[in-house]
Amino acid sequence: MIRTAILGATGYTARELIALLLRHPEVEVTALTTRQDTRPHVAEVHPSFRGRLDLALENLSIAEVAKRADCVFGCLPHGASAAAVSELLAAGCRVVDFSADYRLNDPQVYAEWYGFEHPDPKRMPETVYGLPELYRESIRGAQLVANPGCYPTSAILALAPLLKQGVIAPDGIVIDSKSGVSGAGRTPKPNLHFPECNESLSAYGVGQHRHTPEIDQVLSDWAGAATNVVFTPHLIPMDRGILTTAYADPIGVWNTEKVLDALRSQYENEPFVRVVEGLPSTKDVAGTNFCDVTARFVRGKVLTISVIDNLIKGASGAAVQNFNLMYNFPETTALV
Amino acid sequence: MIRTAILGATGYTARELIALLLRHPEVEVTALTTRQDTRPHVAEVHPSFRGRLDLALENLSIAEVAKRADCVFGCLPHGASAAAVSELLAAGCRVVDFSADYRLNDPQVYAEWYGFEHPDPKRMPETVYGLPELYRESIRGAQLVANPGCYPTSAILALAPLLKQGVIAPDGIVIDSKSGVSGAGRTPKPNLHFPECNESLSAYGVGQHRHTPEIDQVLSDWAGAATNVVFTPHLIPMDRGILTTAYADPIGVWNTEKVLDALRSQYENEPFVRVVEGLPSTKDVAGTNFCDVTARFVRGKVLTISVIDNLIKGASGAAVQNFNLMYNFPETTALV
Amino acid sequence: MIRTAILGATGYTARELIALLLRHPEVEVTALTTRQDTRPHVAEVHPSFRGRLDLALENLSIAEVAKRADCVFGCLPHGASAAAVSELLAAGCRVVDFSADYRLNDPQVYAEWYGFEHPDPKRMPETVYGLPELYRESIRGAQLVANPGCYPTSAILALAPLLKQGVIAPDGIVIDSKSGVSGAGRTPKPNLHFPECNESLSAYGVGQHRHTPEIDQVLSDWAGAATNVVFTPHLIPMDRGILTTAYADPIGVWNTEKVLDALRSQYENEPFVRVVEGLPSTKDVAGTNFCDVTARFVRGKVLTISVIDNLIKGASGAAVQNFNLMYNFPETTALV
Amino acid sequence: MIRTAILGATGYTARELIALLLRHPEVEVTALTTRQDTRPHVAEVHPSFRGRLDLALENLSIAEVAKRADCVFGCLPHGASAAAVSELLAAGCRVVDFSADYRLNDPQVYAEWYGFEHPDPKRMPETVYGLPELYRESIRGAQLVANPGCYPTSAILALAPLLKQGVIAPDGIVIDSKSGVSGAGRTPKPNLHFPECNESLSAYGVGQHRHTPEIDQVLSDWAGAATNVVFTPHLIPMDRGILTTAYADPIGVWNTEKVLDALRSQYENEPFVRVVEGLPSTKDVAGTNFCDVTARFVRGKVLTISVIDNLIKGASGAAVQNFNLMYNFPETTALV
Repeated sequence: MIRTAILGATGYTARELIALLLRHPEVEVTALTTRQDTRPHVAEVHPSFRGRLDLALENLSIAEVAKRADCVFGCLPHGASAAAVSELLAAGCRVVDFSADYRLNDPQVYAEWYGFEHPDPKRMPETVYGLPELYRESIRGAQLVANPGCYPTSAILALAPLLKQGVIAPDGIVIDSKSGVSGAGRTPKPNLHFPECNESLSAYGVGQHRHTPEIDQVLSDWAGAATNVVFTPHLIPMDRGILTTAYADPIGVWNTEKVLDALRSQYENEPFVRVVEGLPSTKDVAGTNFCDVTARFVRGKVLTISVIDNLIKGASGAAVQNFNLMYNFPETTALV
Repeated sequence: MIRTAILGATGYTARELIALLLRHPEVEVTALTTRQDTRPHVAEVHPSFRGRLDLALENLSIAEVAKRADCVFGCLPHGASAAAVSELLAAGCRVVDFSADYRLNDPQVYAEWYGFEHPDPKRMPETVYGLPELYRESIRGAQLVANPGCYPTSAILALAPLLKQGVIAPDGIVIDSKSGVSGAGRTPKPNLHFPECNESLSAYGVGQHRHTPEIDQVLSDWAGAATNVVFTPHLIPMDRGILTTAYADPIGVWNTEKVLDALRSQYENEPFVRVVEGLPSTKDVAGTNFCDVTARFVRGKVLTISVIDNLIKGASGAAVQNFNLMYNFPETTALV
Repeated sequence: MIRTAILGATGYTARELIALLLRHPEVEVTALTTRQDTRPHVAEVHPSFRGRLDLALENLSIAEVAKRADCVFGCLPHGASAAAVSELLAAGCRVVDFSADYRLNDPQVYAEWYGFEHPDPKRMPETVYGLPELYRESIRGAQLVANPGCYPTSAILALAPLLKQGVIAPDGIVIDSKSGVSGAGRTPKPNLHFPECNESLSAYGVGQHRHTPEIDQVLSDWAGAATNVVFTPHLIPMDRGILTTAYADPIGVWNTEKVLDALRSQYENEPFVRVVEGLPSTKDVAGTNFCDVTARFVRGKVLTISVIDNLIKGASGAAVQNFNLMYNFPETTALV
Repeated sequence: MIRTAILGATGYTARELIALLLRHPEVEVTALTTRQDTRPHVAEVHPSFRGRLDLALENLSIAEVAKRADCVFGCLPHGASAAAVSELLAAGCRVVDFSADYRLNDPQVYAEWYGFEHPDPKRMPETVYGLPELYRESIRGAQLVANPGCYPTSAILALAPLLKQGVIAPDGIVIDSKSGVSGAGRTPKPNLHFPECNESLSAYGVGQHRHTPEIDQVLSDWAGAATNVVFTPHLIPMDRGILTTAYADPIGVWNTEKVLDALRSQYENEPFVRVVEGLPSTKDVAGTNFCDVTARFVRGKVLTISVIDNLIKGASGAAVQNFNLMYNFPETTALV
């Protein structure tokens, strides 16, 4: 029985994570933290857990968390997370970090996109990027796993195999992503107020979204050459789901079936990636850890479409998948 | 040309009001107020007015407003509104007040439901309740009109004629209302955050909603006897629209057709109330100043269903209808 | 390992049922039926099962189903279901019937509300109504269980204990229900077309909905006296969830706390009914088998509010709960 | 007073058109056609017109329509429309055709994308494409105007000026569009059933959508060179609105401000195109005839974002704008 704790347990990813962990036969949830001092019961914060989990959210020190847990899931904001992670690792905990703090390898890139110096730069290059389909073996033994961003997961799973197999060129990739509103978090903001974003549609963070360098880093790794993606996220009036449409220039001559074959050869034994012939919709994967992906050859461009549930495969499901790998549980435990 | 100003012009009702006034051939909008000092352009606050209205929102004193406007629409919160209204009337302006401050006649009832003493109690009993279908003649000459609440409009238009004509008893009326989220205003709050109220449904303010005494006051007036309604509002995941289902005990023997006739006899010449035989939906009246209403006799109860657009017939459309009456313009000007 | 089949496996309740059964450690799904002859793969009909279940939907005779399954879940339309159920029982299968065919005890009431004579009237009075919270012991040994309607579940769980304990009178009960659109089934219809029901709200089946006699039957049973409920369903622009607001006249003097205590005394050991003090929202129970219920004493009326997921506690979750009771599995298996 | 008729008046574009024409001071609506023989009142088909327009939908011959109307708006399906248009023109009517039949100049391109020979190929090259911002002078005197498609309007308004001014290259343009569901019409279909497309997101018609050649034709005209756009439409769970994100390769060196200037120089005197600095949302233009457009220079690509209401600027508003030009009314009549 692995004792687990969740840091920053008030948000949507924490809620989904708790729900998954409650189904995991080898896991006990022993601590949930918040920065408030009122010790709200988990059911006050997440009413769906009424009668299912009897635990308070507590303003715990990292030292206290480390006493109670073998493995810690960090749902803290970037910046704050790195400090906690260092201390947890030093105390012997294993950590799955949802924040962006250890996803990038290069402290300089981090500083450029996040606006401040990373507090723990040495650990950055050695931390594994927790996308099991691409880095499974490195995740197995890891003490610390950087859980991927939701947009990067959807984009990378579609594009990395095509880059690796030389189907598409690393230059000029356009990634047009659309996400449900839960991806923006639980803090009320004017643009997330129901009558503002309901029945509306907009792009945001154009040219400036922090998932851009994360996508570039992993795609470049798989391409063996630097990519320089143009990534545009859009806010869709629905709760959950990401659909990413990507456009790339082929190297050589292709057709739809051959591009699909390239994806199939990568994913044929993957439990959570389904290469589909039809056009997937986010509802096909809502509430699941699946990524459905397809591709087309259109007028000289290679086009990919991938869908995930941003809170599951894009966050908490991926975290449990990583946890299963770290502890040698069957990879699909609690996820199907 | 009537010069008009809007106090508290940042919210949804103000936005709808501006849109209606821009279509009114006899109206000029001369001032929009806010409590901020930054003088935002109206299009920064309401992007739909880009290129259509060139006016800033200003932190104006009431004296300044009174210089610029003949008629003032007050979209201030209750409490704050009464002070502004008194000063405007003293300065010779005519006022349509969207707040609840002058809807109730009885200062004691106000104190009970709003939690403080009304600052201008003398004016309360003499102020006309601005529901043109019921109080048209008093509105015509009025200096001050109290614009009705959205829920009361939907409930009263369905029930008042049945009470007046002795179809239903004043006792034991149940009013079950459902409203889109714009009715809750533009300030972000946790329960109005998109991922919280989207795809969800809840009641709120059960037994405590401040529209209760407003409904009772008008229904009692039309019944000639005190009503004591049980009013339950619900929040519906949509932008706009109210549907009110009311249940009452009949006096004597009725059938559906006779109850419908009672409604028809009241509304046959009304431009904005449509008595319908089918079951109306809020979309039938969305974006319009119409109220569609029907009734049924079911298992010994009289049931009414009425629908309005909460921001138009439930707020800004009613205000323009009142304005038209006050200034002797055709009642439907700018509303069809 | 219990071999199970689903008749009529194309709809939403069948989809939810399959998802639950896939998690059940003692269940094997062996047959899915459809009236089409094309044998579509389950993933063509329900894309979420891609890669999770490898089974075709087949146009099977009842005899063929009976060979493959120990327990059959019937998701056929009323009328068609009774014929299949009779044959399945004769062949030795146990059956959980989602249709309305065996919910009512009285063939005459059935004929009145459904418009034709029941084909198997003798079995009607002896069939157990599958609401475990009220009829658990009878469900345990049953060969046939009539799975309750979604609206009745929400209304009965709130009202039956109050009737039984003499808190409310059987006369004059008003049940105002609001449901997400999945409750209307999967067949495209004009009023369920996205741009028609999105952002809109309407009542339907007023005074005529077939869940009315089902509610009356169970409430009368628990009241020990005939009820005659006025039941009004409304269509809400969301996928799933039912919220039922009911209004009843108290017998004697009550307050909110005492009414809540009456509910608590009934449900304190129930795994799936949560008596709550706050106002529940449908999202608190979405995707779960829980019913959250509260009550208020308002201006002389007792008011109850109950929420369920119409596809889970209102259909497929209840079916699995019944199945667990029928086969002596822990009642919560596959449901938490 | 211009007498107008609408062919095929049951759909959403016809409904929006009627609403606009009712506000037009120089227009009388004299005929609405349908292929049904039941002569439904307009309010049975479009409940929002209850009490506002007293007209039946009739199964009229074109000859009958021509007697009643000076100008006819055709909302018929492609193929059927061409036959009606020819006959109307021969009878002396002027026509605004919503179908795709006269948008393309080249009969061969039509045959390729629509799958059959155009019945009236001679008129194709001479028909004006009714996008006033680009072809205003040709629209003024026209007998027949081909009203543009909704997606093409959003894409062309953003890209045509940049092609004309040499900002972007005609090759390799990617157009990623997102539309509300009303764009798919009023006929119920499985994928437009509320519980299917609500809370979901998908692409459709990838590489095959018939708006592709329409976009290419107009962009090529403005580029002075052939374009070969990759156009991908997506279905968004909302009623109305299109947002188009387009990606193109610049010719030479640019920055965001200079690209915006190129758009501004094209549109500075346009009443219905607003070049904005911020990121527009579809709600900014919902219910209006405006197109809001912006641009960015991102990592070597020029990116444009444009939003319209698909039923207004993308259909019925554009039609009224064209009508105003054809009859020398002020271009904004009935549209602001």
